[in-house]
Amino acid sequence: MEKTEDKNQQPEEEQVVNPWEVSAKDGGKIDYDKLIDKFGCQRLDQSFVDRVQRLTSRPPHVFLRRGVFFAHRDFNDILDAYERGEKFYLYTGRGPSSEALHLGHLIPFMFTKYLQDAFKVPLVIQLTDDEKCMWKNLSVEESQRLARENAKDIIACGFDISKTFIFSDFDYVGGAFYKNMVKVAKCVTYNKVVGIFGFTGEDHIGKVSFPPVQAVPSFPSSFPHLFSGKDNLRCLIPCAIDQDPYFRMTRDVAPRIGYHKPALIESLFFPALQGENGKMSASDPNSAIYVTDSAKDIKYKVNKHAFTGGQESIEKHRQYGANLEVDIPIKYLNFFLEDDAELEHIKKEYGAGRMLTGEVKKRLSEVLTELVERHRRARAAVTDEMVDAFMAVRPLPNMFD
Amino acid sequence: MEKTEDKNQQPEEEQVVNPWEVSAKDGGKIDYDKLIDKFGCQRLDQSFVDRVQRLTSRPPHVFLRRGVFFAHRDFNDILDAYERGEKFYLYTGRGPSSEALHLGHLIPFMFTKYLQDAFKVPLVIQLTDDEKCMWKNLSVEESQRLARENAKDIIACGFDISKTFIFSDFDYVGGAFYKNMVKVAKCVTYNKVVGIFGFTGEDHIGKVSFPPVQAVPSFPSSFPHLFSGKDNLRCLIPCAIDQDPYFRMTRDVAPRIGYHKPALIESLFFPALQGENGKMSASDPNSAIYVTDSAKDIKYKVNKHAFTGGQESIEKHRQYGANLEVDIPIKYLNFFLEDDAELEHIKKEYGAGRMLTGEVKKRLSEVLTELVERHRRARAAVTDEMVDAFMAVRPLPNMFD
Repeated sequence: MEKTEDKNQQPEEEQVVNPWEVSAKDGGKIDYDKLIDKFGCQRLDQSFVDRVQRLTSRPPHVFLRRGVFFAHRDFNDILDAYERGEKFYLYTGRGPSSEALHLGHLIPFMFTKYLQDAFKVPLVIQLTDDEKCMWKNLSVEESQRLARENAKDIIACGFDISKTFIFSDFDYVGGAFYKNMVKVAKCVTYNKVVGIFGFTGEDHIGKVSFPPVQAVPSFPSSFPHLFSGKDNLRCLIPCAIDQDPYFRMTRDVAPRIGYHKPALIESLFFPALQGENGKMSASDPNSAIYVTDSAKDIKYKVNKHAFTGGQESIEKHRQYGANLEVDIPIKYLNFFLEDDAELEHIKKEYGAGRMLTGEVKKRLSEVLTELVERHRRARAAVTDEMVDAFMAVRPLPNMFD
Repeated sequence: MEKTEDKNQQPEEEQVVNPWEVSAKDGGKIDYDKLIDKFGCQRLDQSFVDRVQRLTSRPPHVFLRRGVFFAHRDFNDILDAYERGEKFYLYTGRGPSSEALHLGHLIPFMFTKYLQDAFKVPLVIQLTDDEKCMWKNLSVEESQRLARENAKDIIACGFDISKTFIFSDFDYVGGAFYKNMVKVAKCVTYNKVVGIFGFTGEDHIGKVSFPPVQAVPSFPSSFPHLFSGKDNLRCLIPCAIDQDPYFRMTRDVAPRIGYHKPALIESLFFPALQGENGKMSASDPNSAIYVTDSAKDIKYKVNKHAFTGGQESIEKHRQYGANLEVDIPIKYLNFFLEDDAELEHIKKEYGAGRMLTGEVKKRLSEVLTELVERHRRARAAVTDEMVDAFMAVRPLPNMFD
């Protein structure tokens, strides 16, 4: 169903990255430099990290200083505007296709929370239950139920309710939002979406209709209860880079219908436990750590399934050291171990063979268990009333404070 | 823009009838028998007219007894259900692309009003301002303004406010309506809409997205404020036959998503003043009588532009009589002169050459002037408050009384 080849790409030779499929060339690693070239976005270099630190007067998030968010479009314009004293808003989202989130799903939300706190800006979070209903063949009701369950996990990331609006497409599409959908749809030909998304004639028309739904939260007028009279407000979208095609289309259309192009800040994919050749897959529970996993599950998955760069015997390991380039425990620690000094120490010792794979995996299990248990406690505290409150269509009078 | 060829049709040879284009073969007359065959609907024969008269205990509408509504799909199921004591609802609509309506635009509304009165059933009227925004390249605001202006003309046809809900797509798309749009879209491939509507790759995706919008008013669950808990309610759609493609698609999808197929009762096209080879065109003011035309305008248009079957000289006319088959004044009187005896008399005398073209045109001008002036008075009495009332999303507690 999720036919995805870009017309300009040789399927035998090239990696495939789009909103429904991520696969590296010949089962290898994703080539992010090539992806930046192909998509036409920019690398987020150290000068941005320094500038963000200066502008926000706080240490840059670990995902920023370690290059997890590695690419951008017009992030400089957002920072220029912010420096001039202008505000912006954040837009991110999730397609609610599964009950429990895995760690990869948390990354944009953890980072978005940091951006919200650091820049003190409002945030809209789109739950594309309509998309998942159409692509995953879920019923409307089941998609909406998953959207609400996922909203609890999102809220558990700590968003500020006075600055955050979470919406389900099935609930919110209509009115100003629908008008913008029509404006976008008028500017995009069928051939264009085939070029961007690779749809075929046998795909249903719901797929062809959907890109404007994901496009229009980029425009402040889609949220009259929040941004009425603020049509010039800029939008910054933190997302994984597989969502770039939607926003390339959106940026192409935006000036034609009188809006700023949304800016993007884009992340690497969080690798599967089995190795870094794609995204984690919700359909293989052993490929990912879920926020519902117990300490025991995490220990088992890390010990049993995490691909390691350690050598096959202790002797060889002491002699050659671990290959950190392919080592999943190191990659996971790079995302989630906040202490830079400890991470450097582990990499040094492990790379030199003085630290064994088992020790690194033990530390990773501790870090992940702490993260997951903290998330689970936060999620357990999210009530239905809180979900209703975050999802209520209401003004946010203090959203820029 | 309105590229329309059906894949199964030879453009050089065949007539073209779809929602955006009506043209006869070689500039001749529309062959309605062929259309019925091609579309796969049924002819509405005399037995239906008699049955409607019996069931409603009132004379059948002139459009019914004179074959203006000439084709149907499952109208028998509607009548069977009605006879069993079950109710149904009516759905019709208009694409608001022009300020003033012409007489052809009034036909479905005049007939729908008769059906509402005769069967005592609720009615939903869709104003497809989104469609016209996309096809006619009108702004969202202008499309909505035209929708509201056209709503006044529709209300002037005399609909019962206790049984009628008029809605603009830009206002009403969302919620239950959007959920049904997604359900329909999931069931229709791109190839399918290309086959039905003739879209090309250079058409914008708004066109591809639109057919579900016109489809879902056929399903009672799209109107929870009216039909909550009545998912089995049948829908009857009075429309001109060029709208059939939308509802063929809808009928194909309906059982797959748990609804009855909507029934249809379909009219001929109202001919242009210049002759019966298509619909009237809003872009040529002399091709049509508008509801805003004065008595003088009407007299001028009928005398100057109405194609006649009368002979070129009085002598020849007396000798051969008029060709009623091509005579536009006779065709217009067939729609709008309610007195059957008078119409028969005119046809007999004119056909025999005893009545002259000028006399028939004079009578037609009187009939049309009376109709248009009655409409204009009714429209002048329609206030903004009445439009708001008809368009309010509200329950209709007496809609089946």
